[in-house]
Amino acid sequence: MPLRISEIFGPTVQGEGILIGEPTVFVRAGGCDYRCVWCDSRYAVDTSHRKDWQRMSHHEVWAKIQALSNATPLTVSLSGGNPALQDFGPLIDLGLTHGYTFACETQGSVPQSWFGKLKTLILSPKPPSSGREPDWARLDACLVVGHDAQQIALKIVVFDDADYGFAKSVAKRYPDLPMYLQPGNPDFAASHDVSADDVARRLTWLVDKTLADAWFTPRILPQLHVMMWGNRRGV
Amino acid sequence: MPLRISEIFGPTVQGEGILIGEPTVFVRAGGCDYRCVWCDSRYAVDTSHRKDWQRMSHHEVWAKIQALSNATPLTVSLSGGNPALQDFGPLIDLGLTHGYTFACETQGSVPQSWFGKLKTLILSPKPPSSGREPDWARLDACLVVGHDAQQIALKIVVFDDADYGFAKSVAKRYPDLPMYLQPGNPDFAASHDVSADDVARRLTWLVDKTLADAWFTPRILPQLHVMMWGNRRGV
Repeated sequence: MPLRISEIFGPTVQGEGILIGEPTVFVRAGGCDYRCVWCDSRYAVDTSHRKDWQRMSHHEVWAKIQALSNATPLTVSLSGGNPALQDFGPLIDLGLTHGYTFACETQGSVPQSWFGKLKTLILSPKPPSSGREPDWARLDACLVVGHDAQQIALKIVVFDDADYGFAKSVAKRYPDLPMYLQPGNPDFAASHDVSADDVARRLTWLVDKTLADAWFTPRILPQLHVMMWGNRRGV
Repeated sequence: MPLRISEIFGPTVQGEGILIGEPTVFVRAGGCDYRCVWCDSRYAVDTSHRKDWQRMSHHEVWAKIQALSNATPLTVSLSGGNPALQDFGPLIDLGLTHGYTFACETQGSVPQSWFGKLKTLILSPKPPSSGREPDWARLDACLVVGHDAQQIALKIVVFDDADYGFAKSVAKRYPDLPMYLQPGNPDFAASHDVSADDVARRLTWLVDKTLADAWFTPRILPQLHVMMWGNRRGV
């Protein structure tokens, strides 16, 4: 069964969450079961873009990763779209035999047995501003099948007070999982370049809010890649 | 024996290195055995500022931490100056009994038995641009006494190509320690505010350099606090 791939790019650094700053090659899956109103990767989500997605075998994806990384092991980040709609198990097996490790970020709506092969599973249930409601039973199922991943972390995007309240409720539900808060990027569709100062201002808002609340358990991080490269693709 | 304290502030977020984004209260020790040419905390280093340092008992420092954090456990970051010139053991013991955890960042020139009580020990040997040369035997001794810390990480500031080469040699010397690279902040003494865009540009330079070299093991991170607040103190 071939994979539907929106893009493969890197090496670059992971711009957000638990692996922030980590060199990585991104494999962006095409296709998603969600349509978040502020999605910054609609080209990997909307079926109108399907003609731009490549059908690639696991071996073809693996060859591309090796070429981009100069055959030097690194972390491969599976993103999307929702990568959990597809079977990345064979690709992960190929990479592991060559010393590569894998991370995957997904909203947690579809459990996949290959989660257990990951070094890092990032679950990012979507807050109210997305227009979606998480299915907690499915997120729980992702935790069960991902139990063998070396680390599991939560990432919550926070645009407003309702999202912030959602993040606190998720933390209460999963007190043992490390949580990463991230200010939303309202300029995802902007044709102008977003400046690092814009991102820094939104980060400061979220930091001030969280600390004033004496909520000290989550880490609060920006999207570094937006600070470095604005909303450009492929970096 | 009272502590010499330059400042205690927070809660804020840790702006750099392995704990980036983590809510924390900073305890900045007064006094340093180094005089790095680009030091951004001369007010905690130069003896001409000694009159501004407070002599505080461990209980006084602990009371201040509790007041700032609303008696809610968090990570306390010991910085400086060089905090390893003083005995923070009794303070750490006080905090641990109340559920607080401790991180310490030091250049690794002075081993202290209390390193073993830390959750996180960050060793930041200074690169050539600092005008200093690390004493490796002392750094090794810090690793020995810090063995019981939950995690130990290296942080290297990189201003130029020589610093970059230094970072690679340190990685070769300590292949098992996670390493964090950080672009230097040349505007530390600037009266104008440093912009997040300035920091983002220097980060991009370091990311590009490291990835072009296919060096994928270190994480590469900016000073987030400079992006958020410029070179202001106390945030």
